[in-house]
Amino acid sequence: MALELVVMGAASATPTSNQYTTSQLLKMREHYFLIDCGEGTQKQLRRSKIKFSRINHIFISHLHGDHFFGLVGLLSSFHLLGRTTPLTVYGPPKLKDLILAQFRASGTFTSYPIHFAVTQHKVPQVLLETDDYTISSFPLKHRIATTGFLFEEKEQQRKLNKPVADAYGVPVCDYHWIKDGKDWTSEEGQLVPNKELTFDPPAPLRYAFASDTMYTHDTATYIQGVDLLYHESTFCEDKAKRAQETMHSTAKEAAIVAKEAGATHLLLGHFSARYRDFGQFKEEALEWFDSVWLAKELHSYRLSSKGLKVESLTTSPSDEK
Amino acid sequence: MALELVVMGAASATPTSNQYTTSQLLKMREHYFLIDCGEGTQKQLRRSKIKFSRINHIFISHLHGDHFFGLVGLLSSFHLLGRTTPLTVYGPPKLKDLILAQFRASGTFTSYPIHFAVTQHKVPQVLLETDDYTISSFPLKHRIATTGFLFEEKEQQRKLNKPVADAYGVPVCDYHWIKDGKDWTSEEGQLVPNKELTFDPPAPLRYAFASDTMYTHDTATYIQGVDLLYHESTFCEDKAKRAQETMHSTAKEAAIVAKEAGATHLLLGHFSARYRDFGQFKEEALEWFDSVWLAKELHSYRLSSKGLKVESLTTSPSDEK
Repeated sequence: MALELVVMGAASATPTSNQYTTSQLLKMREHYFLIDCGEGTQKQLRRSKIKFSRINHIFISHLHGDHFFGLVGLLSSFHLLGRTTPLTVYGPPKLKDLILAQFRASGTFTSYPIHFAVTQHKVPQVLLETDDYTISSFPLKHRIATTGFLFEEKEQQRKLNKPVADAYGVPVCDYHWIKDGKDWTSEEGQLVPNKELTFDPPAPLRYAFASDTMYTHDTATYIQGVDLLYHESTFCEDKAKRAQETMHSTAKEAAIVAKEAGATHLLLGHFSARYRDFGQFKEEALEWFDSVWLAKELHSYRLSSKGLKVESLTTSPSDEK
Repeated sequence: MALELVVMGAASATPTSNQYTTSQLLKMREHYFLIDCGEGTQKQLRRSKIKFSRINHIFISHLHGDHFFGLVGLLSSFHLLGRTTPLTVYGPPKLKDLILAQFRASGTFTSYPIHFAVTQHKVPQVLLETDDYTISSFPLKHRIATTGFLFEEKEQQRKLNKPVADAYGVPVCDYHWIKDGKDWTSEEGQLVPNKELTFDPPAPLRYAFASDTMYTHDTATYIQGVDLLYHESTFCEDKAKRAQETMHSTAKEAAIVAKEAGATHLLLGHFSARYRDFGQFKEEALEWFDSVWLAKELHSYRLSSKGLKVESLTTSPSDEK
């Protein structure tokens, strides 16, 4: 099993001719989650060949345009394409009104139900829990109400070692208990320990997205031991003052959060257009944390027990058209 | 002098991976006007190398998303880039609230003043008049309040034939009257007719944009004798029923409006994604009107006394990146 993050956009503030603002698609145990939705996200989803119909949950970190101006267009396209499956949008309190006002102005009643779930930025909050995963929001410190999101796979059942089970003559009806971790006793009273009958399931993976935020130690406390942390880092330390003023983080600060959280990998994004070479972000972060990656548009970051694998989704740098 | 229209997007309803929704930039006598603003328009403006600072007037035909979802992002970018020049946005009554609500939610007070001028869709209306041009809106028939826009250059002063003026010994202080069309009398009492002293100025040009609308003969009455008419034609006659239901026009209907208006050239756009070959639109319209062109993204349509010249702004089909 693997967890895959596809980056739709990683630019900050304003899109440029070839850069999109924040949005990511997370694939976790066959479920698709869209995180933030800058202008043009629907275009990037198409380019990534991601089926719109697979997206049932959208998470918006805060209401700065570079994180949500693409949402109304995407919801509108869902409608125009005839979607009927319900959709849940998680975001700050005002999001619902902003979206619905636009639909009202155009006389649109969407073909599918939209449930707006309100996040709040003062305390961490579980947003969604199933047998497969738990998704929570956690507070960040930005100029307006902003939350990060934590996506956690749940522990899976143990995997049956079938040849061994067969050798002991374990009946199929007992598989269920064994997968749940129970030892097995034969009719003759022989106790077979569970670890002889099963393999460990893959360790559950955890992904955290810390959107626009200034450095705060609290961030690390919410996401302890996360496998992959996407932490925005709009500036490097050479613009630390600007970072402070605008309540953004530097690459160094993002790396410190990753370190304090005991994260495995750190992905940096939301780069200011003031920088031409994003390599500077990586270099700076590497001084404080070992595994640093740069978020690139239309790139997939696939996390498994073997580590993080990065792949471009575009066949050539110029296959836009 | 020439009038130039640069098409940013000509797709209808939903943007696809390589098509943008409605937006055009009109260059008229050195003035830049943005007409409609589908999602991603700011990206297309950048690709067209059009300076944001040249745009002081934006015209929104109606509040369907494919005509204005890119506006808030563009206005936001103007702010983030430090614009201070006032901007006027012309559009339906609710537009102001929709935009300002989004700014309020993000705590944004724009660095420049925005004046929202309300269009109304029941009668034609002069929106803006200067010595150089007149811009009006005119009613269209769509599912929600929709207007078209008419851009008219004003007659210019006559051009002085300087060698002839010098031969007669016309003093510089009389040039002004002569350019205004007055005859000239020498101190000896000799009357020199104006047409001997001047050339005709280039004929003033007129551009009309008829956004989403069903066919109505009224459209032609508002734009009589227009040089270039961009009339949306979402469907061809094979989908006339669908056109009727959604209150859009077919290519044939657009051509009939062009004919009834006595237009010189017709540009078709806002094509439905149901068509793979837009050549069908051109063929259909050519049966009813002589000079038919298809709106293509990042193409310039330059109108002068010599006719209409079409040019791609991109150096190669794949220079997106």
